[in-house]
Amino acid sequence: MINHFCKTPLWEASRTLAAVAGGRQPAETVITGAQLVNVCTSEILPDTGVAISCGRIALVGDVTRCIGPETTVIDAEGQYIAPGFLDGHIHVESSMLTVGQYARAVIPHGTVGIYMDPHEIANVLGLEGVACMAEEAKGTPLKTMITTPSCVPAVPGFEDTGSFIGTEDVAAAMEWDSVVGLGEMMNFPGILSGDGHAHGIVGETLKAGKIPTGHYSLPETEAGLNAYAAAGLRCCHESTRAEDALAKMRLGMYAQLREGSAWHDLHEVAKAITEHRVDTRFACLISDDTHPHTLVEQGHLDHILRRALEEGIDPVTAIQMVTINTAQCFQMDHELGSIAPGKCADIVFLKDLAGMQVTRVLIDGEAVAENGRMTAEIPAYPYPDWARDTMHVGGAVTAETFAVSSQGRERAEVRVIEVIPARVGSYERRAVLEARDGRLSADTGRDILKAAVLERHRKTGTVGRGFVKGFGIRSGAMASTVAHDAHNLLVVGADDGDMALAANTLIGCGGGMTVVRGGRVLGVVPLPVAGLMNADKTAEEMSAAVAALEKAWEEIGCEMVSPFMTMALLSLACLPELRLTNRGLVDCRTFSFVPLLCEPQ
Amino acid sequence: MINHFCKTPLWEASRTLAAVAGGRQPAETVITGAQLVNVCTSEILPDTGVAISCGRIALVGDVTRCIGPETTVIDAEGQYIAPGFLDGHIHVESSMLTVGQYARAVIPHGTVGIYMDPHEIANVLGLEGVACMAEEAKGTPLKTMITTPSCVPAVPGFEDTGSFIGTEDVAAAMEWDSVVGLGEMMNFPGILSGDGHAHGIVGETLKAGKIPTGHYSLPETEAGLNAYAAAGLRCCHESTRAEDALAKMRLGMYAQLREGSAWHDLHEVAKAITEHRVDTRFACLISDDTHPHTLVEQGHLDHILRRALEEGIDPVTAIQMVTINTAQCFQMDHELGSIAPGKCADIVFLKDLAGMQVTRVLIDGEAVAENGRMTAEIPAYPYPDWARDTMHVGGAVTAETFAVSSQGRERAEVRVIEVIPARVGSYERRAVLEARDGRLSADTGRDILKAAVLERHRKTGTVGRGFVKGFGIRSGAMASTVAHDAHNLLVVGADDGDMALAANTLIGCGGGMTVVRGGRVLGVVPLPVAGLMNADKTAEEMSAAVAALEKAWEEIGCEMVSPFMTMALLSLACLPELRLTNRGLVDCRTFSFVPLLCEPQ
Repeated sequence: MINHFCKTPLWEASRTLAAVAGGRQPAETVITGAQLVNVCTSEILPDTGVAISCGRIALVGDVTRCIGPETTVIDAEGQYIAPGFLDGHIHVESSMLTVGQYARAVIPHGTVGIYMDPHEIANVLGLEGVACMAEEAKGTPLKTMITTPSCVPAVPGFEDTGSFIGTEDVAAAMEWDSVVGLGEMMNFPGILSGDGHAHGIVGETLKAGKIPTGHYSLPETEAGLNAYAAAGLRCCHESTRAEDALAKMRLGMYAQLREGSAWHDLHEVAKAITEHRVDTRFACLISDDTHPHTLVEQGHLDHILRRALEEGIDPVTAIQMVTINTAQCFQMDHELGSIAPGKCADIVFLKDLAGMQVTRVLIDGEAVAENGRMTAEIPAYPYPDWARDTMHVGGAVTAETFAVSSQGRERAEVRVIEVIPARVGSYERRAVLEARDGRLSADTGRDILKAAVLERHRKTGTVGRGFVKGFGIRSGAMASTVAHDAHNLLVVGADDGDMALAANTLIGCGGGMTVVRGGRVLGVVPLPVAGLMNADKTAEEMSAAVAALEKAWEEIGCEMVSPFMTMALLSLACLPELRLTNRGLVDCRTFSFVPLLCEPQ
Repeated sequence: MINHFCKTPLWEASRTLAAVAGGRQPAETVITGAQLVNVCTSEILPDTGVAISCGRIALVGDVTRCIGPETTVIDAEGQYIAPGFLDGHIHVESSMLTVGQYARAVIPHGTVGIYMDPHEIANVLGLEGVACMAEEAKGTPLKTMITTPSCVPAVPGFEDTGSFIGTEDVAAAMEWDSVVGLGEMMNFPGILSGDGHAHGIVGETLKAGKIPTGHYSLPETEAGLNAYAAAGLRCCHESTRAEDALAKMRLGMYAQLREGSAWHDLHEVAKAITEHRVDTRFACLISDDTHPHTLVEQGHLDHILRRALEEGIDPVTAIQMVTINTAQCFQMDHELGSIAPGKCADIVFLKDLAGMQVTRVLIDGEAVAENGRMTAEIPAYPYPDWARDTMHVGGAVTAETFAVSSQGRERAEVRVIEVIPARVGSYERRAVLEARDGRLSADTGRDILKAAVLERHRKTGTVGRGFVKGFGIRSGAMASTVAHDAHNLLVVGADDGDMALAANTLIGCGGGMTVVRGGRVLGVVPLPVAGLMNADKTAEEMSAAVAALEKAWEEIGCEMVSPFMTMALLSLACLPELRLTNRGLVDCRTFSFVPLLCEPQ
């Protein structure tokens, strides 16, 4: 892997670095008086200096001889310095921010690099959409390593997406400068069964000398996990039990321990480390999905480090898990992940290790954040019109769009998706609904709402309809274009008219999330970039907008925490038991379409 | 780094591996009932099985379901299995064997892969010679990863070699399939001073995404070592003190702890690990130079592992230092260095960990050695005639060739190189010699011998002449074409006539080492391939031949252990204090030629 993520290639900088280390040329910047968190040897070394030029580290040790009249001297005053934090698996889209805003939000928390799997935008806009994010990333100091989305669509044949990524597309994307690997291979059933497409995509990655990343969410750690690892999948963030993580490490896979906004795995999986005296080089900490309020209220990898400490992981070990281990996972440790000569000068200052409070961040030797605020400018990136024009719903949406026929019956038994708060699974339930005028409606008395998924990419006009329970709303409707993974227009409501209003609100603003009641819009979070992200609002602004939307949810009776996240999974047709796509109800245990109305007994 | 060192690329094997792991297709081979040395987690896992197909590991765990009627079942009977050993820095030429014979010698000791720096042959035959060794290696099971020699000649301007390797040559060699990096960059003064050629060669390696390996032999671990590391040199085997090794690990360099036939560094450098509680992932064990008698009497990496244990290193940690750490150093850990699904099935069986006794070796899933003996055939490789015809000495060699004029003086003070047994350094001494017939001769009474280096690559006829002490011989002469690094024809003796006989003996047999006395050849080790290696004799045969030669040395009065090794460094003009090349005496402290006769006071 040659470097594309540093200010200066090492081969252009090395003579300068040698001169700086040798005291023949002053450094551009030096750090003095730091306690070095040495992730190579897992030690804390007192009173250490770092000399920097060309965006790289020239010397670690006594920097006296490297200081000239023009040298910027940063006195660490005994603070700790650690390598910049790397997030080994992250979907930027989950933050509802584009890369520029995301970078602004995470860099002050010590994040200097992310391994980004942009599979949400890829479902809407394909690799062209990914290219936009890559282009935007270039304008930020955040090192944005792309893993090419592997599973677009997530469940072929069961939904309509805006794009399809085939083996050839993956092969072509491996040529991109910014692509370092393959995004999470969610199609583990395909890998296990020897599916040619799944293996082909991984194979193209291996042929390019890049890193295939994994997603293996079964609790089975023998035949299945071995088969998955044997295919070359190098890491996996789907461990929810300590034994899952331990099994992966033992099989030479990087166990990426996750602490996302919604998925709090660390409490359990940290035990793989704290309860076993194992070498931890194959353990990493990652976020996967982080929502704007988490970024604003808790932070990013600094927060996850604090969580790791709470779970009993040693601070230096924890820091290795977001630095050198991650860099070694991606075979980029010659550039990133340690404070060592020749490496990029990506350095985080920490007030203490117990609190992991980040006070300063250098990227490529430049101070980019101080005391929780960006000090570097990130220019606005103008997403092209086609990336902001993705609401292609076929035909007008009216109350009629949401009508469900009783098929001539007076009452009908229907399948109902029951969501489970803060869990990704769902249950298939049954309910008998009384028909009125030949139609079946929501029954808020029993917390049964209507749901619909309107294809929004190619104006096919296809609509999947169903019923859901578990949200608890009494009236009104909600809609969202964040509807995994096809990101069609998902609408849930108590009333067909309000459902139409919710849908049309999002069609009007280019996508996003909304709550309406009685013909009035109570809240809306516009996500005009691909219907997934907002390029114009900061994390703070988005957090406030989402908080307002959550208040609107409350207003119509929902007591769930972050209900929009649970709602967004209603359409994710690879998770059991029952899901709804634009093509209809999918039984995700048997991977087959099932009718909404059950056959009369 | 894509793989060239495995039987089947992973992308061709992955579907089969998934089928084997899943129990849908029987494995080709399984191992049952082993104690797994898990180098990923640093654990020993009891009663473990391994399923193998396509030369790769399909499953680690319970192999019951992977066994079919055709499956070869190897019952480990409770023995340990570890990943095949990798030697991260080795000059095959030092064994006096070509790669085929070397492979035969080391594989039964558990070595499955070597990172070979063929800089001896490169000095004689250039990259064409390296290509021969690479070609021979392909016929062996030994994974022979080449690091392209970086310093040919070792000391430009001070000696004449058979070849010159420039920046463009290095760039071209980086395209070779078998090249994984750059050989030890011995020109650390050039790196430290910012020399364009030295940095250029490293730069070409980095541009190719390959690994520059180091050689930094100064005791200075601040400015110099930082400058060296900052240039991208990723590892170094030249630590002789624990603090050297520790400093390198702290700077993110792989400290390759050496235990060669002649250089017994481990006793000191192991303390970097045993006396400091550091993460050991940046520590490796390597051999550098291994002579045939060591291979025969002691072994290879198994011997070095035993030595590591004697120095107090934990067995699993030591095994990591010849497996996963080495693979990670070369960013080849996705293929080599662990017993894990998808990796090459390179597996060593060990009777116990205390003795590191290797009982069986699999490479790419094939049993290649058992109980100390090769079971796989290695075909003979016919080195081309030009590689066996390298004695190009200008003009006839006679006693006159070795005459040293007293420059008209009756007595003259001369510079004398004093060798130090079992050390690589030498001292500059002075001695006054009486002239006879206008010439200066050896004075065995004071252990002063004559030495000469005859250029043998391009018939230039250049001869460097000098005096040496420390060998203690009373009569006769010795000659060698193993004379670092230019490998010219080095002759040392008490008598000019015997010196001529020694030289002509080697010219006659295509190079090697010989001892003569009184017009009679007492012993000769023919090394016809480049004057460095013998392709036809086994390690046992070469060991016996060298033993016979050592006996001849004894016979003429030398009590030194392996004197030919000490002699071979007489011409290595990059080590202090005084050396002799075909161009004359070199003061290696000031890097200048000095006259043999001192100016009269």
